[in-house]
Amino acid sequence: MSANRQTSWETKAQIARDILENSIPKQWLVDPKLLQTAGTRNVTIAVEKCGLLTDDEIEMTNTSTDGLLEKYRSGCWTAEAVITAYLKRATIGHQFLNFATEFLAESAINAARNLDKHFRETGTLIGPLHGVPVSVKEHVGIGGARCNASFVSKIDNLVEEDALIVKLLKSAGAVIHVRTNQPQSIMHLDCNNNITGMTLNPLDERLSPGGSSGGEGAAIGFRCSVLGVGTDIGGSVRVPAAFCNVYGFKPTALRNPSLGLVGAMGGQEGIRGCVGPLARNLDDLITFEKVIWNQEPWETDTVLVPLPWREVEVSLSTLTVGILFDDGVVHPHPPVTRAIVEAEKKLRAAGIKTVRWEPHNHSEGWEILRQLYFADGGERVRAVINESGEPVMPLTEFALTRGSNDALTIHQTWELNMRREKLRREHHALMRERGVDVILCPSYAGVGAAQGTPTYWLYTSIWNALDQPAVSFPSNVVADKELDKADAAYEPRSDVDKKEWEAYDPELFHGIPVSVQLVGKHHRDEELLRAAKIIEGALLS
Amino acid sequence: MSANRQTSWETKAQIARDILENSIPKQWLVDPKLLQTAGTRNVTIAVEKCGLLTDDEIEMTNTSTDGLLEKYRSGCWTAEAVITAYLKRATIGHQFLNFATEFLAESAINAARNLDKHFRETGTLIGPLHGVPVSVKEHVGIGGARCNASFVSKIDNLVEEDALIVKLLKSAGAVIHVRTNQPQSIMHLDCNNNITGMTLNPLDERLSPGGSSGGEGAAIGFRCSVLGVGTDIGGSVRVPAAFCNVYGFKPTALRNPSLGLVGAMGGQEGIRGCVGPLARNLDDLITFEKVIWNQEPWETDTVLVPLPWREVEVSLSTLTVGILFDDGVVHPHPPVTRAIVEAEKKLRAAGIKTVRWEPHNHSEGWEILRQLYFADGGERVRAVINESGEPVMPLTEFALTRGSNDALTIHQTWELNMRREKLRREHHALMRERGVDVILCPSYAGVGAAQGTPTYWLYTSIWNALDQPAVSFPSNVVADKELDKADAAYEPRSDVDKKEWEAYDPELFHGIPVSVQLVGKHHRDEELLRAAKIIEGALLS
Repeated sequence: MSANRQTSWETKAQIARDILENSIPKQWLVDPKLLQTAGTRNVTIAVEKCGLLTDDEIEMTNTSTDGLLEKYRSGCWTAEAVITAYLKRATIGHQFLNFATEFLAESAINAARNLDKHFRETGTLIGPLHGVPVSVKEHVGIGGARCNASFVSKIDNLVEEDALIVKLLKSAGAVIHVRTNQPQSIMHLDCNNNITGMTLNPLDERLSPGGSSGGEGAAIGFRCSVLGVGTDIGGSVRVPAAFCNVYGFKPTALRNPSLGLVGAMGGQEGIRGCVGPLARNLDDLITFEKVIWNQEPWETDTVLVPLPWREVEVSLSTLTVGILFDDGVVHPHPPVTRAIVEAEKKLRAAGIKTVRWEPHNHSEGWEILRQLYFADGGERVRAVINESGEPVMPLTEFALTRGSNDALTIHQTWELNMRREKLRREHHALMRERGVDVILCPSYAGVGAAQGTPTYWLYTSIWNALDQPAVSFPSNVVADKELDKADAAYEPRSDVDKKEWEAYDPELFHGIPVSVQLVGKHHRDEELLRAAKIIEGALLS
Repeated sequence: MSANRQTSWETKAQIARDILENSIPKQWLVDPKLLQTAGTRNVTIAVEKCGLLTDDEIEMTNTSTDGLLEKYRSGCWTAEAVITAYLKRATIGHQFLNFATEFLAESAINAARNLDKHFRETGTLIGPLHGVPVSVKEHVGIGGARCNASFVSKIDNLVEEDALIVKLLKSAGAVIHVRTNQPQSIMHLDCNNNITGMTLNPLDERLSPGGSSGGEGAAIGFRCSVLGVGTDIGGSVRVPAAFCNVYGFKPTALRNPSLGLVGAMGGQEGIRGCVGPLARNLDDLITFEKVIWNQEPWETDTVLVPLPWREVEVSLSTLTVGILFDDGVVHPHPPVTRAIVEAEKKLRAAGIKTVRWEPHNHSEGWEILRQLYFADGGERVRAVINESGEPVMPLTEFALTRGSNDALTIHQTWELNMRREKLRREHHALMRERGVDVILCPSYAGVGAAQGTPTYWLYTSIWNALDQPAVSFPSNVVADKELDKADAAYEPRSDVDKKEWEAYDPELFHGIPVSVQLVGKHHRDEELLRAAKIIEGALLS
């Protein structure tokens, strides 16, 4: 049986591989020699320099939403030209990074032509994302496409209509041109599966692109799209954003619609995942959320909180930033600590009030998370994997065995729900008591992680436990083996802490940019994004 | 053991009975002969006529919030006089109706004196509920009091601080003067328990006051308080409001805070209960919600949706009312149907657009509710009852055995959560498609129910399944044995339908006022309450 099933799952996986292979625009296939000679580092820069892209294409693919709209409005660029440039860059990037699961070239070009027609006929753009290329994580449903959520057993799953988030993006003029990779079970902070395999990090192919929205991290990092649609239940938007040196936002959970996402855990409400955008700057994250929230998604997906985008004032002079160096469970690596130290200095220099933020019981947060993630003892994920006979990957096994292992009783879930709500209330009360508006902290214990190794979730997942919005963005600090030596006085707090500390490799991470995470109050998403703009300004100064 | 436990639970129950007995202000005890001669009907009117209350006291206890504030502002009445009048009336009413679990006379008089002092010193009222007497359902925590949630095993449960809803009411000036009865398990549409026993209906002592907030129904019905704090997970505010001919509002679930409520089912989130007010008119319900929502309860209880009270315009000329006669599961009794028919006529006569509302799959709603209410198979409720050895009452047994019986698996709860969300989306989409703003429907299958008999929840509980706000209020129609004859052509749809139909007793219900229920869209609580004002105006014209 084992041999048969193996044949069978490989055969089935091949269907999805063929879909990907057939969808790749062949005119942009790269000479295999170039793929080998690009080296392990900074493939993005290498590609921009090697002549594969024209100057126009490089300019287009380095332009973000506002810039694109300006070019469209002035008639300087057509959507067709821009989408074509992004498709080309995505095709090239995919050959280096293996981030795509399917190209949507034909429908994207058609959509772009329709936008151009609309502009020619009316002189106006169709909406705030007119002709903006958007990549979408594979498990977010695309009407008419197959959606397997990285499970071989779901490879035949034909989706009838677009997920609500995709509908709303399209109705604002966005063009979906490529679907992106995610790990098996969508519960790794890494990006590998048995179908289309491992996605690489554009900064260094030895490093994980992060996950689970790792395909998005790579796509945005390589500038294959302007906006990416990711999902996050423990860091799955923020970690790939951090590892690929881009921007990623996880909102408060019930603001972006999840209707039409495919997965194995539907109806699990103890810890809610959510859709979140990745982008190349904060403004694009803001535009994304404005577009979604101002279309009243709660009128279709009634579980959502009916809050439109709020224009809020956040001023440098009244903002108080809590600085969290260490979650008390796992020591961050030296470059991460230095990024936070530097950030604190720069904020103070810019006249922004900072206070040291003592973490509040993050380990309790983890106890709640790990049990509620897999309240069924991981049975559902195992069943969906076993259905096809595909192997359980090591990071899937890791996630499942750090979970509750046995299915919880109903009463245990009730107790955990109450503990979760108590922790949320306590944390919110502390922020109010301490007068802290936002918390600056690491996005991950390290500046990155080697492929297959990211395992410590809590710097991001604590904010899922607390349902506070959080955004990851570049700190303007770069890891440096000379400056970031491991502290000789380090003493491990636990086996987990020791393992994570030992993952710091000064040579491997030397030169890799460090991201930081900014966290807002529950349901103060707009205030958080505005504060992030101010703080980023200070970090860049 | 059985004998011992019986002794033991009775002894323990006696502690709570003594608390009640000792708290009753003795100066207002009524001559037992009067209690007997008041008859079974309309005890409220009998008491007003028999001279126990002075004219001033009758006027005070017939004045609602706006009227009280006016009298306070003009210095005409003191809070002490008003609270004293309400305490007196509550003491008298309790002797007829057994609705109280504890009087808070001393703290209420002290609070009133403080309000009067504030007014004397500042010339201003302390807030929008200055000196407004509020009764509170027993399981809503009162700091320093014992809170048993009608479980004998919890009789020693000393609560440290007021429930958040109580804090917010007090901070607006409300005075809590009496705590009110609820049934065992708080899951009957009736009001009887093993501690303080059965509450009677002020309209007719043979009838149930409804439940589970039956003590509130009786208290407001007898005019022992201006506002009542009830809770509702299946009709527990609306059914007692309907049965006692008063007003009761169940908001969308996560708007009023439940923090500090005592019960057996903490952490059960599949179907969320909520706090809701009872009152003597719609304006007081509106005032209650304004007071709560404008104090930002979500800053303390982070599970709440951060929506302040919204001032909305609802106009008679643009309103569309769906008329729901029958839920397709259980036929309403003839007086209820007549009330809806009359309402439809009056709305049309007033120029309000009505359309017939075809119910959407209420039986699916019930399937979801009954399983998610008792996802643990009722084990927790049984355990908390058995802990003391008190008997399981028939309506508790009924509720538990109509539930899931066996504990659900985690996967079953996930499936039910998804079915619930699908039903909510479908229902909301239907209201939009049909252009219906609010739905007018029965509050209960009958105009009332004999003591110990109300068992059909779905006319109210469907709106808990759908998480739509709903308000019950008098229809201005009174049951009439001549007009409301049972339809000879009636054919039962099911055993449940037959049983409910047979509960119609034209003699028993003759002369009892009929309430109706108005239902709004999810999170359109303010629109619903404004629409209810317009509709009530039409029904009274």
